[in-house]
Amino acid sequence: MAEVERVRVSPNVSLPMPVVLIGTRLGGRANFMPAGWCCRANLAPPMLCCGINRTHATPGAIRETGTFSVNIPSAGQMEATDYCGLVSGADVDKSTVFEVVYGELGTAPMVADCPVAMECRVVEVVSLPSHDLAIGEIVAAYADPAVLRDDRIEMDAVDPLLLTMPDNTYRSLGRELGRAWSVGRRRAEER
Amino acid sequence: MAEVERVRVSPNVSLPMPVVLIGTRLGGRANFMPAGWCCRANLAPPMLCCGINRTHATPGAIRETGTFSVNIPSAGQMEATDYCGLVSGADVDKSTVFEVVYGELGTAPMVADCPVAMECRVVEVVSLPSHDLAIGEIVAAYADPAVLRDDRIEMDAVDPLLLTMPDNTYRSLGRELGRAWSVGRRRAEER
Repeated sequence: MAEVERVRVSPNVSLPMPVVLIGTRLGGRANFMPAGWCCRANLAPPMLCCGINRTHATPGAIRETGTFSVNIPSAGQMEATDYCGLVSGADVDKSTVFEVVYGELGTAPMVADCPVAMECRVVEVVSLPSHDLAIGEIVAAYADPAVLRDDRIEMDAVDPLLLTMPDNTYRSLGRELGRAWSVGRRRAEER
Repeated sequence: MAEVERVRVSPNVSLPMPVVLIGTRLGGRANFMPAGWCCRANLAPPMLCCGINRTHATPGAIRETGTFSVNIPSAGQMEATDYCGLVSGADVDKSTVFEVVYGELGTAPMVADCPVAMECRVVEVVSLPSHDLAIGEIVAAYADPAVLRDDRIEMDAVDPLLLTMPDNTYRSLGRELGRAWSVGRRRAEER
């Protein structure tokens, strides 16, 4: 690779990702699984997408109800969040791990004690070889008033969990480095 | 919301996301745009997806070449990365901002000086109302040997940029909080 030395590595590269809890209605009760493959997909209307292995119980529940929730746990919920990833909703009732609340969709259980929760209506499920990529419209979002400043969510107050792999480590959000759409402005003006 | 107080907020919720540079071949030269809506989508074969507003030049280039790259800049590349988000490849030649290298796909320019770079072949582009959700198979990945430990990418060494919104702030990866698939084990065993 020219003057810079680069070596080929496994294409199974992980990005450092926020951890979310995906809520579904499974077998008549609320179920939650942590996921690290979730990002926004569309601006207007707001949509997000989640890549979920079909070996989990969640993809079937999403297809069945056409709804799901995405909840952002805080670092203080790390242990309960991790637990939800160690047992399957197919075997274990996870409906009592958190306080559960339903919103307007009725079939997308949310974690009431997460600082941020979104209920989503399925727009499309893209069936990839091992994973379902569930694209959902965020029809409503809820937050703990304590994480709001001027009605907007302040991520420092949310104190989310990030996950890095392959070291499989939960991390906090780090320090501020600079302003986006700003620190590159001088270079743009010097052109 | 039961005993926990929650208020309704705008559904346009942002997750704290890693910043990547999406590389495309545009008008015969390399072009790069920073993006915060990118996550893994499939495990085997490895795929990722990127939500990109169609007002940008990048979605057209992805559709035209059927390829793109995803590069993970380090915090030291914050200013150059931000610059790429302030000017459009439709107006400005961004091919000299970084050292450019091509891999086996030939049409997916990568940032040679990013610690991690992936070249992707388009699997599907999902056309959402404002954004294209480009799903790509990672056909090859490259890394700076300095960020590898036992041939695996160490995210602390990559020192990636995270973006939080709406405060539009770049951040570093924070401190270690616990081990994933581990800290919830006691609760799983106590069931």
